[in-house]
Amino acid sequence: MGGYENGDSPASVAGEGGVILGVDGGTTNTVCVCLPAAMPPPESPAAVPVLARAVAGCSNRNSVGESAALETLKLVMTQALSIANTDRSAVRAVCLAVSGVNHPSDQQRMLDWIRDLFPENAKFYVENDAVAALASGTMGKLHGCVLIAGTGSIAYGVTEDGKVARAAGAGPVLGDWGSGYGIAAQALTAVIKAHDGRGQQTSLTGSILEKLELSSPDEIIGWTYADPSWARIAALVPVVVSSAEDGDEVANKILHDSVQELADTVMAVVRRLRLCGEDGKDKFPLVLVGGVLEGNKKWDISGEVIKCISKVFPGTDPIWPEVEPAIGAALLAWSHHRKGFKWENGS
Amino acid sequence: MGGYENGDSPASVAGEGGVILGVDGGTTNTVCVCLPAAMPPPESPAAVPVLARAVAGCSNRNSVGESAALETLKLVMTQALSIANTDRSAVRAVCLAVSGVNHPSDQQRMLDWIRDLFPENAKFYVENDAVAALASGTMGKLHGCVLIAGTGSIAYGVTEDGKVARAAGAGPVLGDWGSGYGIAAQALTAVIKAHDGRGQQTSLTGSILEKLELSSPDEIIGWTYADPSWARIAALVPVVVSSAEDGDEVANKILHDSVQELADTVMAVVRRLRLCGEDGKDKFPLVLVGGVLEGNKKWDISGEVIKCISKVFPGTDPIWPEVEPAIGAALLAWSHHRKGFKWENGS
Repeated sequence: MGGYENGDSPASVAGEGGVILGVDGGTTNTVCVCLPAAMPPPESPAAVPVLARAVAGCSNRNSVGESAALETLKLVMTQALSIANTDRSAVRAVCLAVSGVNHPSDQQRMLDWIRDLFPENAKFYVENDAVAALASGTMGKLHGCVLIAGTGSIAYGVTEDGKVARAAGAGPVLGDWGSGYGIAAQALTAVIKAHDGRGQQTSLTGSILEKLELSSPDEIIGWTYADPSWARIAALVPVVVSSAEDGDEVANKILHDSVQELADTVMAVVRRLRLCGEDGKDKFPLVLVGGVLEGNKKWDISGEVIKCISKVFPGTDPIWPEVEPAIGAALLAWSHHRKGFKWENGS
Repeated sequence: MGGYENGDSPASVAGEGGVILGVDGGTTNTVCVCLPAAMPPPESPAAVPVLARAVAGCSNRNSVGESAALETLKLVMTQALSIANTDRSAVRAVCLAVSGVNHPSDQQRMLDWIRDLFPENAKFYVENDAVAALASGTMGKLHGCVLIAGTGSIAYGVTEDGKVARAAGAGPVLGDWGSGYGIAAQALTAVIKAHDGRGQQTSLTGSILEKLELSSPDEIIGWTYADPSWARIAALVPVVVSSAEDGDEVANKILHDSVQELADTVMAVVRRLRLCGEDGKDKFPLVLVGGVLEGNKKWDISGEVIKCISKVFPGTDPIWPEVEPAIGAALLAWSHHRKGFKWENGS
């Protein structure tokens, strides 16, 4: 969080030229960071001078509904401004990077809403949360592909000349089977199928019942539909990974299927944008973000995904970002803001 | 509706010995029929003297929540009694056969609730809706297996000595992929995958967009999550069947997968209950119920399911019921009621 010496209070920094907000709105939680609008270009994402950081719940409108999502976004921005000892009047630019924003009409509704919250001359950018995640891995440069696999999953790519493409990110009803939700729902299904005679026995039964403090697979049905939150289902992923690491066949098949889904998702974007060049061998950044892709486990999901993609596109250059997507969002807003004031060409 | 001559008004019939209610509570709608408690054993399901029939919306607690489900059940019973020119005081027995009732605790909560609505000496039976569907095909005899595939799917079996088993019926999150919801969700997923480069092109894209009056596959995401009703998704099944009949490969694969899922579901129950006898060749009734299994289409889903099951269990005896499941539920309540009064041994 370096860049400012002890004597500078956040309030005085914010006062110099206002602030920038970057919001990463996900299905599990929503993070907002506040940067000084007048900061110089940071040498690395880790050197970005963050004035404040606030966290709230789910802001995916497809999961909790539009009004709850907007309330959460408003809350998290208000909290960040308050932590930074400033208020809405100091805001110069905001980038809302929110999961579930899939169509120009979603974007427009959110722009109309956010304009009423801040000063008239502030600038606003509404993007899918994938854009912030890509920026967090590429030092703010919009080029390459990002794969996010947390509660949901999406691949999003941008070419150097600004063409974009995405795959998946359509939620659990529409086939995001590589996501945390997808992995967990398939594990719950495997328990039900083993119980009613349709599927093979699996150690997932014991480990999931223990985790959920239930006594029989029949009770899983009531548990599943008692609360429609996707994040609650996706929280079972570590149980599936453990079972797979312990050699359970069913859990291993679920993870292998999920690896293939995630790899297919990235490859669809890479192909459509020709990120791999005409000969299919150009180097391109692949930013990997989200709980499902975090490493340090024996069963290495992101390693397997990269292995699968690299067989087809040997130029795949994997990046695990050093900073969180909310900082990527803030850097995008900051860079747009600087361009708007014509201080220099975009970084 | 036969059995009573014109001169007998429903009120006078009901007055003789009270009435019986049978309720078939599904995810798409809920049907209640009212029978005279003192009727003689009917010669065939079609000869059952129905005093009244009322229809309401979804009463699956997993889909609309418990309080909305109970409100719907109360409404449909009140309407049926009103149509029969009688009231709650005339009720002698009720069978609630409701989808989403999966556990003794669900059953108990519903029994506690219904007892407060009717006279103290009335009898109440709460079952999964599959039980009523089975009874509607077997003339009230609880023996064999029923496969329901409407919005949801379930197989439920009973042996002659009263053992029961079920498979599936766990809703869309937990792998009911042979259901109407499952077929339609896979078709929507196929459209998304064809659009974003993960799947092959399909005529489902044009036909689903036309049906939903949308202009692009991206808009399907917003449409899907705008309303969580499962029945709304399942209503797309006829579009999938048409595309398959017109030779679309993707639609054909979805229907073939669904046939296999439904056949596996039935076979799991038949195996667990040994409905096919020790040698696997005994005859057993297989009652087929629900929109997905209704015939008269070129692409005959129920015919394919039976073909698939008969290869393994040649004694499969398919029955398409002549009456609706609500009458099955009423016949069960009537038969229990008669037993309770010791008029004769159960039919």
